[in-house]
Amino acid sequence: MAKTNVIAEPGAQEIIITRIFDAPRELVFQAHIDPKLLIKWLGPRELKMTIEKLEPRSGGSWRYIHTDKDGNKFGFHGIFHEIAAPDRAIQTFEFEGLPEKGHVSLETARFEELPNSKTKLTITSVFQSVADRDGMIQADMERGLNESHERLDELLSALQKEKKR
Amino acid sequence: MAKTNVIAEPGAQEIIITRIFDAPRELVFQAHIDPKLLIKWLGPRELKMTIEKLEPRSGGSWRYIHTDKDGNKFGFHGIFHEIAAPDRAIQTFEFEGLPEKGHVSLETARFEELPNSKTKLTITSVFQSVADRDGMIQADMERGLNESHERLDELLSALQKEKKR
Repeated sequence: MAKTNVIAEPGAQEIIITRIFDAPRELVFQAHIDPKLLIKWLGPRELKMTIEKLEPRSGGSWRYIHTDKDGNKFGFHGIFHEIAAPDRAIQTFEFEGLPEKGHVSLETARFEELPNSKTKLTITSVFQSVADRDGMIQADMERGLNESHERLDELLSALQKEKKR
Repeated sequence: MAKTNVIAEPGAQEIIITRIFDAPRELVFQAHIDPKLLIKWLGPRELKMTIEKLEPRSGGSWRYIHTDKDGNKFGFHGIFHEIAAPDRAIQTFEFEGLPEKGHVSLETARFEELPNSKTKLTITSVFQSVADRDGMIQADMERGLNESHERLDELLSALQKEKKR
C-alpha cells in the first residue's frame, strides 16, 4: 500500500507531505472538508475525534478535539483562508497543547488528478520558525499522519464500493 | 527617525520586520486593527486606500484595496487566525494581483513594551516557498513598508498630542 512521504529538510521551516490515493479527486477533496467524512479518518485509531466546528468555506473556522482512552483531550483549531474545490484548501493550524499560544502553521493542500482515477495530495506546511517545524516532527507527526492516511484509504475504498452498488 | 529593519536571509522563506515606535503598545496595536486608524497610514502616500472589510477578531476576515492616480486597483485579503490584544495578531495575507491565486503568507505581528512608552513591533512573514518570499522582496515591499511606517509615526504622534490637549 502507498505510504505517506514526508520531507523536512534540515534548517528549513516547512514540511512537505505527499501521498497518492486510489480515488477520484472530488472524493479525496470532499473527505478533507466534510465533517461527516473527516471524523472517520483524521488522527490515530485509538483517539476519539469530536468536531466542535468546521465551516468549509473561505473565511470559515474549524476546531476539533482528540480524546484518548484516559480522557486526555488534544485540541486543534484554525481558519480556512481559501477553499477552492477540488483544487486546493489553505488553512491555518494551531495545536492547543503547546506551552504558549500563538505557534501557528499555514497548510496548503493541493489535490492533483492522476490517470486511472487516482489523486495526488501535496500538503505544504510552513511554520513561524525552524524550531516550531522541528517540534512538530519530534511530536511523531509522521506516524499519526500515516495512520490517518491508512484510515482515509479504507474510507475512500468503502465509499467507492457503496457508490458502485 | 527610526527606520524599519527588514531581514530576508538568502534561501529562507521568511521576512522579519522590526521597528520601534515612540508610542505606547496599546495605541500601536490599535492602529493595526482599527479600520479608522489603519486607513490613515497603510500603504504609500500616493495610493488611496479603501477598506472593504476588517473584522478585528480571531476568525475575522479583512480585505482592502489600494488605488493609484490612474485608477489601477491592488487588492489584498486574508483572515485573522488570532487577535490577542495588545500582544500579537496572526493573520493570512494574499495579494490579489499575482498571476495565480493561492500564494498566501502567514504574518505574525508581536508588540513589545519598551521603557519610556515606546513599542517594538516585530512582524514575521512566512511564505509557501522561497520563490514566493523573493517575489515579495522584489516587489519593493521595503520601500512601501518604510513609507507606511513613517505615516504611522506621524499618526501616532498626532493621536498622542490630541490626547494631551
